[in-house]
Amino acid sequence: MNFSFEVAKTDAGGARRGRLATPHGTIETPVFMPVGTAATVKGLTQEALEELGAGILLANTYHLYLRPGHELICQLGGLHRFMSWPRAILTDSGGYQVFSLAELRKITDEGVRFRSHLDGSEHLLSPEKAAEIQLALGSDIAMVLDECIETPAPRDKAEAAVRRTTEWARRARNYFEVTALLPGDRPRYLMGVGRPEQLADYVTLGIDMMDCVLPTRAARHACLYTSEGRVLIRNARYAQDQRPIDPACACSVCRRYTRAYLRHLFAAGELTAAILATHHNVHFYLDIMGQIREAIEFGNLAKFSSEMRARYVAGPV
Amino acid sequence: MNFSFEVAKTDAGGARRGRLATPHGTIETPVFMPVGTAATVKGLTQEALEELGAGILLANTYHLYLRPGHELICQLGGLHRFMSWPRAILTDSGGYQVFSLAELRKITDEGVRFRSHLDGSEHLLSPEKAAEIQLALGSDIAMVLDECIETPAPRDKAEAAVRRTTEWARRARNYFEVTALLPGDRPRYLMGVGRPEQLADYVTLGIDMMDCVLPTRAARHACLYTSEGRVLIRNARYAQDQRPIDPACACSVCRRYTRAYLRHLFAAGELTAAILATHHNVHFYLDIMGQIREAIEFGNLAKFSSEMRARYVAGPV
Repeated sequence: MNFSFEVAKTDAGGARRGRLATPHGTIETPVFMPVGTAATVKGLTQEALEELGAGILLANTYHLYLRPGHELICQLGGLHRFMSWPRAILTDSGGYQVFSLAELRKITDEGVRFRSHLDGSEHLLSPEKAAEIQLALGSDIAMVLDECIETPAPRDKAEAAVRRTTEWARRARNYFEVTALLPGDRPRYLMGVGRPEQLADYVTLGIDMMDCVLPTRAARHACLYTSEGRVLIRNARYAQDQRPIDPACACSVCRRYTRAYLRHLFAAGELTAAILATHHNVHFYLDIMGQIREAIEFGNLAKFSSEMRARYVAGPV
Repeated sequence: MNFSFEVAKTDAGGARRGRLATPHGTIETPVFMPVGTAATVKGLTQEALEELGAGILLANTYHLYLRPGHELICQLGGLHRFMSWPRAILTDSGGYQVFSLAELRKITDEGVRFRSHLDGSEHLLSPEKAAEIQLALGSDIAMVLDECIETPAPRDKAEAAVRRTTEWARRARNYFEVTALLPGDRPRYLMGVGRPEQLADYVTLGIDMMDCVLPTRAARHACLYTSEGRVLIRNARYAQDQRPIDPACACSVCRRYTRAYLRHLFAAGELTAAILATHHNVHFYLDIMGQIREAIEFGNLAKFSSEMRARYVAGPV
């Protein structure tokens, strides 16, 4: 099986520099994974993602199960072929979406019974069902169903959720061992983080993989990330600003367009605003991770982390 | 001045094959011009428009005058530089938008007094003002202010509008002759048309230039144009259709994505749906015009026109 994880170096602070081999390519870690919830990263084509150097995307089990359906995607040759994405795909279990999006959810040891946020239809998501859906999608890295609880929570409630999730993981593992797809190696994946200045801190804690909607969602809300801090591009101060979003950035948007033009596109509510801003922000996140990997190799991640934080704590530039 | 128009061939039916030289490149006519109302073609980057082979775009005087303002664009180096578009730009006069969008418009011989649809502010658009705005934008081809009337209209009302527009054209010409920018040659431009099956008919009437929001607007509403007719991609029949939008099309969307995937993106309300659909439809229009130019050269435009009409009268495929 084309699946292995090797840690090439661990720095003094605990950060790991590794390589994760998947059936759809090898990923340099630590890695940031753009989020393609419904089999698309909002505002970016797969060509653009390839140009940006993304080696792995996240897709969402809950959303794809409800629409267009994992069986349909399976019939059409699996998720890679359906969305024309030849590189790796990680799917989450749907646990968080059932917790946060679905209606009338009821959690038992069996699984989660819920109503779809799309049409109110009733479904049961069990650890085995979550595994079955992800197998049908053909994801390279699957997640086990987890029980998500609201925080803060009393200790007994948190412990019960951990016990149930661990039992669900055992059942999912049994399901997969029918299918023998679980990797023996263990990269560490922290789901749904984070802000630009937090990425290096998580890596320092030994995290190998992260994903977050922040770069794409912030882009659609006119918040651009730069090497100097956040640029809130709707601000009137950028109306005549002929500089690129980030003069230090090499992305195709920064090579061509000005802040004045981006601001105009957002003011006019144009689709192209989201396209250009998303392209830049995803480039920024992937570029930061490249810098973090380099910093681990050269042993200066702590310095990189503190510089990054200093630029971002000051608020928008 | 880098501006000339030559008719290389006129076919038996009256269709003209020509070349329009502008300060920003030479355009093969008949030509279809994608509409970039607010200095962007909705859903396409300028890179994508270059890849599609668009030699000229339309931009809108009324919209750019109100936002971000022609003076700002002029300060930033003109419209080409503002939007990073090195090829030709045609701007309309704003006459139609004042007629259809603005509030409380009052038309006199002086011009049109109106309130902005954005903030209610009051403005006067005169023939001289429309010329001044387009000069500030630095458009390659400017339009004179026209009085638009509702149709059907009584003959005397239509005649009065023609008289007034002709007088306005004389005043605009005087304004430009201060500036000596009006071309001596006369390509024939029909504004705001048309459907795919109409393009060849207008060319047969001797039209050299056309523009229309139809390919981009229809794309955003899930209507795709193909060599076999219209594809309404939201239709359930496409849910498992693994063919490209148009098997006969060579565009980058048809080379990569399936109808099933496009249908899913529209069903999920994803941004990428508009991006991919717009790319295909604009390619389709520009490709039709290339076929029309070739048909004029080979003397078989009438055959092309009747075949095209036959495919489109039958309704969606």
